[in-house]
Amino acid sequence: MVQKKRRILPALPKLNFVAKNSQKAGLPPGSMVYVGKARQGDSVISAFDYNEQKLEFFEKLNPDNLSFCENPDTVTWVNVDGIHDTAVIDKVCEQFGIHPLTREDIVNTSLRPKIEEYDDYYFVVMKMIYLYEETGQILIEQVSFVLGKKYVITFQEQFGDVFQSVRDRIRQEGSRLRKRKSDYLLYALMDIILSHYFIVLETLEGKIENLEEKLYEHAGTDILQEIQVMKKELIYLRRAVFPLREVINQIVRGDGRMISHKIQVYYRDLYDHIYQVTETVETFRDLLSGLHDLYLTEVSNRMNEIMKVLTIISTIFMPLTFIAGIYGMNFDDMPETHFKWGYPIVWGVMVIIAIAMIFYFRNKKWL
Amino acid sequence: MVQKKRRILPALPKLNFVAKNSQKAGLPPGSMVYVGKARQGDSVISAFDYNEQKLEFFEKLNPDNLSFCENPDTVTWVNVDGIHDTAVIDKVCEQFGIHPLTREDIVNTSLRPKIEEYDDYYFVVMKMIYLYEETGQILIEQVSFVLGKKYVITFQEQFGDVFQSVRDRIRQEGSRLRKRKSDYLLYALMDIILSHYFIVLETLEGKIENLEEKLYEHAGTDILQEIQVMKKELIYLRRAVFPLREVINQIVRGDGRMISHKIQVYYRDLYDHIYQVTETVETFRDLLSGLHDLYLTEVSNRMNEIMKVLTIISTIFMPLTFIAGIYGMNFDDMPETHFKWGYPIVWGVMVIIAIAMIFYFRNKKWL
Amino acid sequence: MVQKKRRILPALPKLNFVAKNSQKAGLPPGSMVYVGKARQGDSVISAFDYNEQKLEFFEKLNPDNLSFCENPDTVTWVNVDGIHDTAVIDKVCEQFGIHPLTREDIVNTSLRPKIEEYDDYYFVVMKMIYLYEETGQILIEQVSFVLGKKYVITFQEQFGDVFQSVRDRIRQEGSRLRKRKSDYLLYALMDIILSHYFIVLETLEGKIENLEEKLYEHAGTDILQEIQVMKKELIYLRRAVFPLREVINQIVRGDGRMISHKIQVYYRDLYDHIYQVTETVETFRDLLSGLHDLYLTEVSNRMNEIMKVLTIISTIFMPLTFIAGIYGMNFDDMPETHFKWGYPIVWGVMVIIAIAMIFYFRNKKWL
Amino acid sequence: MVQKKRRILPALPKLNFVAKNSQKAGLPPGSMVYVGKARQGDSVISAFDYNEQKLEFFEKLNPDNLSFCENPDTVTWVNVDGIHDTAVIDKVCEQFGIHPLTREDIVNTSLRPKIEEYDDYYFVVMKMIYLYEETGQILIEQVSFVLGKKYVITFQEQFGDVFQSVRDRIRQEGSRLRKRKSDYLLYALMDIILSHYFIVLETLEGKIENLEEKLYEHAGTDILQEIQVMKKELIYLRRAVFPLREVINQIVRGDGRMISHKIQVYYRDLYDHIYQVTETVETFRDLLSGLHDLYLTEVSNRMNEIMKVLTIISTIFMPLTFIAGIYGMNFDDMPETHFKWGYPIVWGVMVIIAIAMIFYFRNKKWL
Amino acid sequence: MVQKKRRILPALPKLNFVAKNSQKAGLPPGSMVYVGKARQGDSVISAFDYNEQKLEFFEKLNPDNLSFCENPDTVTWVNVDGIHDTAVIDKVCEQFGIHPLTREDIVNTSLRPKIEEYDDYYFVVMKMIYLYEETGQILIEQVSFVLGKKYVITFQEQFGDVFQSVRDRIRQEGSRLRKRKSDYLLYALMDIILSHYFIVLETLEGKIENLEEKLYEHAGTDILQEIQVMKKELIYLRRAVFPLREVINQIVRGDGRMISHKIQVYYRDLYDHIYQVTETVETFRDLLSGLHDLYLTEVSNRMNEIMKVLTIISTIFMPLTFIAGIYGMNFDDMPETHFKWGYPIVWGVMVIIAIAMIFYFRNKKWL
Repeated sequence: MVQKKRRILPALPKLNFVAKNSQKAGLPPGSMVYVGKARQGDSVISAFDYNEQKLEFFEKLNPDNLSFCENPDTVTWVNVDGIHDTAVIDKVCEQFGIHPLTREDIVNTSLRPKIEEYDDYYFVVMKMIYLYEETGQILIEQVSFVLGKKYVITFQEQFGDVFQSVRDRIRQEGSRLRKRKSDYLLYALMDIILSHYFIVLETLEGKIENLEEKLYEHAGTDILQEIQVMKKELIYLRRAVFPLREVINQIVRGDGRMISHKIQVYYRDLYDHIYQVTETVETFRDLLSGLHDLYLTEVSNRMNEIMKVLTIISTIFMPLTFIAGIYGMNFDDMPETHFKWGYPIVWGVMVIIAIAMIFYFRNKKWL
Repeated sequence: MVQKKRRILPALPKLNFVAKNSQKAGLPPGSMVYVGKARQGDSVISAFDYNEQKLEFFEKLNPDNLSFCENPDTVTWVNVDGIHDTAVIDKVCEQFGIHPLTREDIVNTSLRPKIEEYDDYYFVVMKMIYLYEETGQILIEQVSFVLGKKYVITFQEQFGDVFQSVRDRIRQEGSRLRKRKSDYLLYALMDIILSHYFIVLETLEGKIENLEEKLYEHAGTDILQEIQVMKKELIYLRRAVFPLREVINQIVRGDGRMISHKIQVYYRDLYDHIYQVTETVETFRDLLSGLHDLYLTEVSNRMNEIMKVLTIISTIFMPLTFIAGIYGMNFDDMPETHFKWGYPIVWGVMVIIAIAMIFYFRNKKWL
Repeated sequence: MVQKKRRILPALPKLNFVAKNSQKAGLPPGSMVYVGKARQGDSVISAFDYNEQKLEFFEKLNPDNLSFCENPDTVTWVNVDGIHDTAVIDKVCEQFGIHPLTREDIVNTSLRPKIEEYDDYYFVVMKMIYLYEETGQILIEQVSFVLGKKYVITFQEQFGDVFQSVRDRIRQEGSRLRKRKSDYLLYALMDIILSHYFIVLETLEGKIENLEEKLYEHAGTDILQEIQVMKKELIYLRRAVFPLREVINQIVRGDGRMISHKIQVYYRDLYDHIYQVTETVETFRDLLSGLHDLYLTEVSNRMNEIMKVLTIISTIFMPLTFIAGIYGMNFDDMPETHFKWGYPIVWGVMVIIAIAMIFYFRNKKWL
Repeated sequence: MVQKKRRILPALPKLNFVAKNSQKAGLPPGSMVYVGKARQGDSVISAFDYNEQKLEFFEKLNPDNLSFCENPDTVTWVNVDGIHDTAVIDKVCEQFGIHPLTREDIVNTSLRPKIEEYDDYYFVVMKMIYLYEETGQILIEQVSFVLGKKYVITFQEQFGDVFQSVRDRIRQEGSRLRKRKSDYLLYALMDIILSHYFIVLETLEGKIENLEEKLYEHAGTDILQEIQVMKKELIYLRRAVFPLREVINQIVRGDGRMISHKIQVYYRDLYDHIYQVTETVETFRDLLSGLHDLYLTEVSNRMNEIMKVLTIISTIFMPLTFIAGIYGMNFDDMPETHFKWGYPIVWGVMVIIAIAMIFYFRNKKWL
Repeated sequence: MVQKKRRILPALPKLNFVAKNSQKAGLPPGSMVYVGKARQGDSVISAFDYNEQKLEFFEKLNPDNLSFCENPDTVTWVNVDGIHDTAVIDKVCEQFGIHPLTREDIVNTSLRPKIEEYDDYYFVVMKMIYLYEETGQILIEQVSFVLGKKYVITFQEQFGDVFQSVRDRIRQEGSRLRKRKSDYLLYALMDIILSHYFIVLETLEGKIENLEEKLYEHAGTDILQEIQVMKKELIYLRRAVFPLREVINQIVRGDGRMISHKIQVYYRDLYDHIYQVTETVETFRDLLSGLHDLYLTEVSNRMNEIMKVLTIISTIFMPLTFIAGIYGMNFDDMPETHFKWGYPIVWGVMVIIAIAMIFYFRNKKWL
């Protein structure tokens, strides 16, 4: 019965820590193998090219023709949705002179967040985190950034992202984004991803509070499973978020080559945010294991409750049944059975025993 | 029954780790969004302007007119109560030339303690901690300090604070505060906040001792909940207090630009205090998890007690009832029932069995 | 019964942490003692000698005659399968001028991964990890690498390895391997071993998911044993994999003497992989101990279920049996027994008691 | 019953981690507030003034007149027993030119061990630890040292200390103490305190061994409480001892200003001792939590024992009682009851069932 | 019963962490107090004096006459068995100019492994570890080394050691030992001690495997005690072995003054060994706590088994006994008792109930 109820709960999240990396065994390094889930549709490339004065937007670009990027006094943001078509990725990378190892990393969706400094560009990997609304599960999508002097390229696993507000700000004339360089654009993109971490954390916070309240009302096994699912989600989250601290730290302590010192102060702010995120994840883990302990204690308490009931009932009725048994014996010579008041006296004795037992249990605080 | 009792306990503290940071998703950096609880009333600004010779106090200041601060040979302490009115905060910050990212941080009440060094000022975030008297819950309020060469600005979430004694010492002519600069004022303010941490710790210490005594008397489920609530409170406290160590350490190891080397020795003293606070918080966590273990062991022990009673009763009465059952059978030919002494003999056997059982349990130390 | 089922499970992996190192007690240092399992057959030596233009392959080489290695403009890869014949190993090492301590290490299969820098060569120890298909156990084999300016020597415990794809790439004209030096060859070999770690991790991931599903269906003791076996396997894995991080890190931060700076970027990539492997191993440990906790909780829950059934049955039938016992007494004067409706009334009372009990338990949510 | 026994145990040690520090809230820094327990009697000041040739001892000194200390070629050891009289402490400090923050620390008995380097002196705080003989509790008293070029001042909470042997050695002509400077005197005093730590550790060691033996004999709840008390004592001990490592380490790595390099080798020896103390405290914690685990396991085992007895008894007598019940029914037509051998046959069946059950349990190893 | 079996097990190892250090309280530093177990017999001194050409062996040397050591072109190894006779130790030390603090350490057998660098010599403390064959307990004996330019002095607690193979190699002409200096001799001695660690680890490994197998067969309380004893042994082992890592590391990173750079490569090898030992000790701790968890789970499982039997028996027989009770009542008017087929029908009903129950339990997988 309880077993069946469970099945209605959201399915357990699939583990995907090693996502088909094994497919690559035996290929030479730099071999691009897409290791995410199979996807349909082509990769879609779009681009912004802007500076303080002018703005151009290109949609559904041909990967072979990204020549506009060479304009030396604009910032270019090329966004690629869908990285399963390795040929397209390859072409895009070719035009920006990106190292084969970076290309390999772009299509490998099982990377931890990291930053790699190459001569001409920085390569940054992050995770976009959001809640899948139907089941409330946490979904994690990989985003890669290539930051050059004049451009930012973003690679996303799927169409649809959290960058809308950045796009709006680019379109808005006179915004700070338009006045600054690619290093500020990267900051703006990373900042918006980080902001969405807080939304996820808030939802989790609500869930934890919810669980706690439910736990104090009734410690059902469904709560246990919810705790278990959340614990796993936090393990995921941690993996996606923790290494980011080091990534941003490295930018903050950077030499100002790609990211100018004036902009580093903004990244310092990002560092604060990511610090808060990781700390909150740790706190949630503590809270959840507190809830697990509580659950276990509640189970023990309930066991005690059950045993008390059993013991009280047994302790009251066993002696009584014994007495009734005595006078059900068929001995020829049982004088009590012939007394006139025998029957009511036995009843009286039984009542006294029962009352004495109840007092005894009251005294022991079992009642 | 037990369930109901629990409801009388103080409500579980609300989690507020990510306090509406999500509202900011999509806004450009430096956007001031108040993320605390909704508050009423205006922000109230007051200021002291003093040096060894003179003292001026300004109440209910207009945020547009803080020109007196420009007096080069006085120390100015501007205190702002209420940070939900971002327009007011903005005006104040404008006049002191405070960076947009700092302004954003001032109104964000979910920050961890930190220090940020800007060219013209230091920005310090701390938590004011006190016990809400009615429920005994720990309340945490954020205080931000901006320390300039000639001024300290304090931003508090709410009216009412712990700075009264500092105000008294400012008003007292010839006090050390009056003779020194803004770096000593900041120290005095931080010191008084830290002193109040000890009051909170003392109360918690009393609670823990109390819980322990109660636990040895009776391990009720209400104690468990109290342990759980305190554990959570300590998680909060830790978050509010731990980063402060690094903050003060950074001041102590500072270059003497904002805080002179002569005053740093005082901050070294603060460091000792905060070290003691964090260590005590850790000790309390140890003690509480010791109490939790004790609770669990008590629950197990009680279970053992209950089972013993049940087993003793069953073991005594089951054989007796069986014997009574035997002689309640209706066989035609049961010779014992016709013996003259049959009935008393059976009674005798039963008493012997009961006594033997009792000796057996005594021997096993169950009685 | 359950006991017997267990025996069908894969035997527990043998501990082999200290593999006969004790045999060496009392021998002078540099004494080569083979400490692996006893093996049959001779050691087999094969070699590739190649540069961009030419390629030679030597099979079943005589250990006394490796003169071809002295060709200054080729890269030589000597592979030795089987290290139990210490005389052969000694001869090979002699010709490459390898230090006695290194020779001792080559035949000691219980080493942790490490790198040792000698004047003329680097000595690297790694573990090759794969799953034994029949039982699904993890098997670990030691591989030692000696990297010289012009050569790589690999020593394997057994015939059969994972290097096939490297051999193919060497044979393929114009491949990157052919164009580069011994430092790149070492990278290619280490990379292919690391790729196989991911295959093992994937299998483990599948097993863990499997276990979790089974656990939610039925928490049998066989699941516990599987958890226990996996925990042990992860302890092994960790020992084999963790020190590798430091090894590769040391190469990445190296001075470019043996491994040129241009090739170090590839090792940086290896570092990412090994980081991901170790992190995943840690995550698996977390997941497994989560499963263990779940198992324990399920056991407690089942206990509660069992106790509930017992208590419900006892609580319903004990009072009823007592009532039946009452009217089985043989007192002369039991008026109820002579009432016309006595019997049905007693039945009625019993039914009412039974129903009341059932309602009581429903109320307590035990039914 | 068990509850009452507990009361005879030594009372739980009082927590005193934050000892009235809260009294100081609102006072200016450098305010001397005595935060220990209320004490009676005056502070008593005594002093030794010695060099290799001469020795003077002063008793019950007037705090206003310590002029003898100014003798430039003697070492002076001023000992102050009782620090609750802040006026006296103030006067003593005045004459040695001690900083207000140090004065504040001297009378604050809740400090952790620390060293502070001032221009003219070092300030060292340590804890004197001894066992209160009547209850066997650990008592901790604070001792502060002020080390100047020519003097050592010691401040103790109470009259009575462990320095007797140092006094004897000072009085003994030609002893090493007489030949050396104040830095060696400080070492001698710290060494003797550390030696007493070992006495406490030895007593604890004996207690732990004792507990373990008792635990294997009978796992009573009193043992649990003793474990709990010792755990708490170790938490105290750890707080008192751990920071000392850093203190002594700082002296060893010092610049030789106050403590000459020749004497530092002695402090290095102290470091070894304190290292051993802290390591032993950690080991004791491990051992105690091992004992706690053992206790819990013993409780579980006992539960199993109890349940086995219950189950065996129930399983034997329930079927027998049922059979007796059958033949107690009053059906008109129960042929078995009229068989001649009916009664003995039923007895036989019962005996067979009982024996079968006993064999069953033997087989299951429950008997 | 179970209690008695336990007594046959090896006695619990005595704790000896603070071995009588307390005896030294009050003595001046450098006071030599022997803190090991009381021993009989004199200290025995023997010595080797050798170089490549010549070899002399001295037995039962007089401590006053070690003049042969002054030969400048030989290596001298003085071995002292028995350190309880402090006068003898003192004389030996005198002739080699050893610092009083070192002398104090030599006779203090409760030291942790350490290295101390003096101007003329290095002082190294290690632990010799072996299994006491009769009980299988781990025994730990302290060995101190004094390494000078031309000599090594070893101090052992007892006669009998593991150095036999070193002695053999010294006697063997042309061996590497004969060709090298005292630094290589020290290495050889430390190496042989480390080799014996592996023997102890191997025995422990066998014990753990043994325990695991036994645990899967039957989780008796004796297994628990064995786990407990091994846990304690590992705590000892860890204390004896862990600090050695730092000791050897310090030698490896040394300045070549006492131990030449050419010999340091051998110590690097020792470092690898000690690293492996400490890692294995940690792994064993993990394995043992895994076994403890397993034991606990087995205890829970057995409890479940027991409760199932009880519940099944109760649930089957309680309703049956109730029915039998019903028809044992003495009401005048119980129609069923007069039906012709009443008795067999009741039997039929009972059988049906019993079968239904069995099916119910089968369904719940309790049978």
